[in-house]
Amino acid sequence: MASAQVLYDFTAEPGNNELTVREGETVTITNQGVGGGWIEAQNSRGEVGLVPEDYIEVREWLGVLSMELASFILYINVLFLLIYCFTVFKIFYSGPELFLLCKQPPKGKEKITIYMGEVGPVWSYPEAQLDCVVADPKKGTKMYGLKSYIEYHVIPNTTNRPVNHRYKHFDWLYERLLDKFGSAIPIPSLPDKQVTGRFEEEFIKMRMERLQGWMTRMCRHPVVSNSDVFQLFLTYKDEKDWKTGKRKAEKDEDVGVMIFSSIEPEAPDLDPIEVEQKCDQFSRFTKAMDDGVKDLLTVGQEHWKRCTGPLPKEYQRIGKAFQNLSSVFTSSGYQGEATLTDAMTSAGKTYEEIAQMVAEQPRKDLHFLMENNNEYKGLLGCFPDTIGVHKAAIEKVKEGDRLVAASKITPQDKVTMAKRVSTMSYALQAEMNHFHSNRIYDYNRVMQLYLEEQVKFYETIAEKLKQAHSQFTTM
Amino acid sequence: MASAQVLYDFTAEPGNNELTVREGETVTITNQGVGGGWIEAQNSRGEVGLVPEDYIEVREWLGVLSMELASFILYINVLFLLIYCFTVFKIFYSGPELFLLCKQPPKGKEKITIYMGEVGPVWSYPEAQLDCVVADPKKGTKMYGLKSYIEYHVIPNTTNRPVNHRYKHFDWLYERLLDKFGSAIPIPSLPDKQVTGRFEEEFIKMRMERLQGWMTRMCRHPVVSNSDVFQLFLTYKDEKDWKTGKRKAEKDEDVGVMIFSSIEPEAPDLDPIEVEQKCDQFSRFTKAMDDGVKDLLTVGQEHWKRCTGPLPKEYQRIGKAFQNLSSVFTSSGYQGEATLTDAMTSAGKTYEEIAQMVAEQPRKDLHFLMENNNEYKGLLGCFPDTIGVHKAAIEKVKEGDRLVAASKITPQDKVTMAKRVSTMSYALQAEMNHFHSNRIYDYNRVMQLYLEEQVKFYETIAEKLKQAHSQFTTM
Repeated sequence: MASAQVLYDFTAEPGNNELTVREGETVTITNQGVGGGWIEAQNSRGEVGLVPEDYIEVREWLGVLSMELASFILYINVLFLLIYCFTVFKIFYSGPELFLLCKQPPKGKEKITIYMGEVGPVWSYPEAQLDCVVADPKKGTKMYGLKSYIEYHVIPNTTNRPVNHRYKHFDWLYERLLDKFGSAIPIPSLPDKQVTGRFEEEFIKMRMERLQGWMTRMCRHPVVSNSDVFQLFLTYKDEKDWKTGKRKAEKDEDVGVMIFSSIEPEAPDLDPIEVEQKCDQFSRFTKAMDDGVKDLLTVGQEHWKRCTGPLPKEYQRIGKAFQNLSSVFTSSGYQGEATLTDAMTSAGKTYEEIAQMVAEQPRKDLHFLMENNNEYKGLLGCFPDTIGVHKAAIEKVKEGDRLVAASKITPQDKVTMAKRVSTMSYALQAEMNHFHSNRIYDYNRVMQLYLEEQVKFYETIAEKLKQAHSQFTTM
Repeated sequence: MASAQVLYDFTAEPGNNELTVREGETVTITNQGVGGGWIEAQNSRGEVGLVPEDYIEVREWLGVLSMELASFILYINVLFLLIYCFTVFKIFYSGPELFLLCKQPPKGKEKITIYMGEVGPVWSYPEAQLDCVVADPKKGTKMYGLKSYIEYHVIPNTTNRPVNHRYKHFDWLYERLLDKFGSAIPIPSLPDKQVTGRFEEEFIKMRMERLQGWMTRMCRHPVVSNSDVFQLFLTYKDEKDWKTGKRKAEKDEDVGVMIFSSIEPEAPDLDPIEVEQKCDQFSRFTKAMDDGVKDLLTVGQEHWKRCTGPLPKEYQRIGKAFQNLSSVFTSSGYQGEATLTDAMTSAGKTYEEIAQMVAEQPRKDLHFLMENNNEYKGLLGCFPDTIGVHKAAIEKVKEGDRLVAASKITPQDKVTMAKRVSTMSYALQAEMNHFHSNRIYDYNRVMQLYLEEQVKFYETIAEKLKQAHSQFTTM
């Protein structure tokens, strides 16, 4: 049996066959083959349970290997790391040539059409808007009850038939969408993965809400929602269908910049100067909006803190001070005191109620404003990469004459590159127009919701105070 | 000419013939006879102007006197101080015997009657409630325009004829009332005297409001308002009338505990044990209320700070964040942006308006709650002295047997003392009942006012937000 070093604190979920371990602790691996990212371990007190495999470092290997072998393994690891980095780099940055200079766009694949709409280039939108509901989080088990997880129902409005998905499936979908569309379409990250506390009700609710937000955004995107991988996720028929679809999606070669080879704008080619201007404009806009959104988030966080911390405490203290004075008055022994003391006690209680309302309000309004802006922060965080691909392509086209002169490319290649960068620009414009129209809808909606709840909040306070007021009398 | 040392910083009011001086500076007295608490002085730069005489220490005397003479003057001063302290002590603490054992109450003076009302002993209330308005603060001058001061109109509802009074006249009245009634009736202090900044509009308004509050309270008191000195203050006919009345009031011998000799309760004598119980009860109540009032003042001050400091800043930042995002959106170049950006700008401005409302609100509601509680704090601060007189009298009566045995008093004196302490107790009860009925009225009134303004405040915010809400659209 191998011994292992615990790298991070991990607190077991009760009733879930897990083992609580502390950073620096040494445990013994009792079963490395349980799968699902977990291994079974035993601590020094003899307790056995599951621990996330990322949380521990198995020592056995280095312990039994000669230093030479260890060095060799290290070398191999570094090599793989370099290959991996190169691949990522190729997709995102040195990518453009892959598309700009590819001999001929692959045949027979799905086409993504761009129309000229009123606002400029737009994606082809489906007649019926795809939508889905993420609901019914249920604790599932596997490995004969050894491991638990949360499974959600995902119900698309097309079939109305729920399919089951765990967080890791959403994560798989995210990775596929990022690979496939990331150069053209910002694919926002999923809500953070979390190991501890993941069975707490509050957390499950919050994660589901965020998964719903993410799915809604993906459904609303005409290109993403129309893709095979996304449709598979929403409508797979059975386990076999899902597995087959997964394998197919993982082998998809139309990823990275090659996505642009599927795009067909129904419009004349653009002047490279115009392409660059558009790209710069989008870059400035998304940067400015990113700043604005982050500013609003900072302000909102501070307001949240005040509303849930010092402010209700203060209203509570006002309420207590009124009630305290009222109880002193009650002790006066003076006749006809009751009307005043009842009224003051009631006013005091009203301020305590206001305190509670103030503390609870952010969950009812600010929460959605923050969630919306958090989503946009995530989305805007993807734009530098997406725009980076376009900028690299533009630079390549600008080098065209030099490359021809150096016989690195043919004059025909140069023409092809200009044509293809124009296609990329149409795609970026279509995406920006999609972004803008969604943004206008989202901000209208969230501001409406926020202000509506704020109105209710202030009206309720006014109503409560009016009732408190009516109890006082100077007659 | 005498030289003088400046004791405290004093900043001249512009256009008021005053001289700015700094602590430690040496000035030359050019005219010690200007009166009104001022002297004329010249600084080292040759500038001449008026300085409050309390702010400087004239050196000439000690400089020219022999040390023996200086010691003698010091001795005389200490002697006067001792006599003064003794007098104060006599009035307030060793006072009771003065009344308890005085041979016979002086004849032919005003009587203060106590009736048995529904709530117990009560002062005799006039049919029409005396009231007065303090208004029209005007800058007056004297010494041929050399000195300025603020003069107020005081208009009693009995004559409807304004009389003029400066702050120092109110202060004179306060001293007379304290001397005369302080043993039986708490006479609250006037708003603080202030030398610098006393011509600033804000300060004049605040002082007038507080003088009004003080006068209203005095007018409402049946014993105080009926006194010669108070009537003189409100209704003197001319300067001569005022001066004559002043001299008479200053010679009044019915001061300190002797006020009780004017009081005639229309009820049987009280058991000394009951007297003591009542006194203790009032002591406990006023102490508890003092604590409650101070607690409310502390909470109120913190709330005031928050409402005028961090809270409006936060609403302002929310407003700015909305407007900022709105102006980013305007730069998108996307069609159909205007409705959203107009709405967001307007929502942002609404939060800026709310910020201003929040900052201004305390002046409209909390201010009056604080002023009322400040008044009560002042009033409650007088009770320990008033109750102290009663406690001392009770102790004296309890010593009765011992004093008779020691032949310090006669058995008849003991009976007289018990009778008189009973009169004192009726007076205290009447005063407490007066206090309670006023308190119930005042707290009802101020809570009504506070809650009314709070309701308006929250309703206005709700209304503003409703308007902001109506501009957003998801159609």
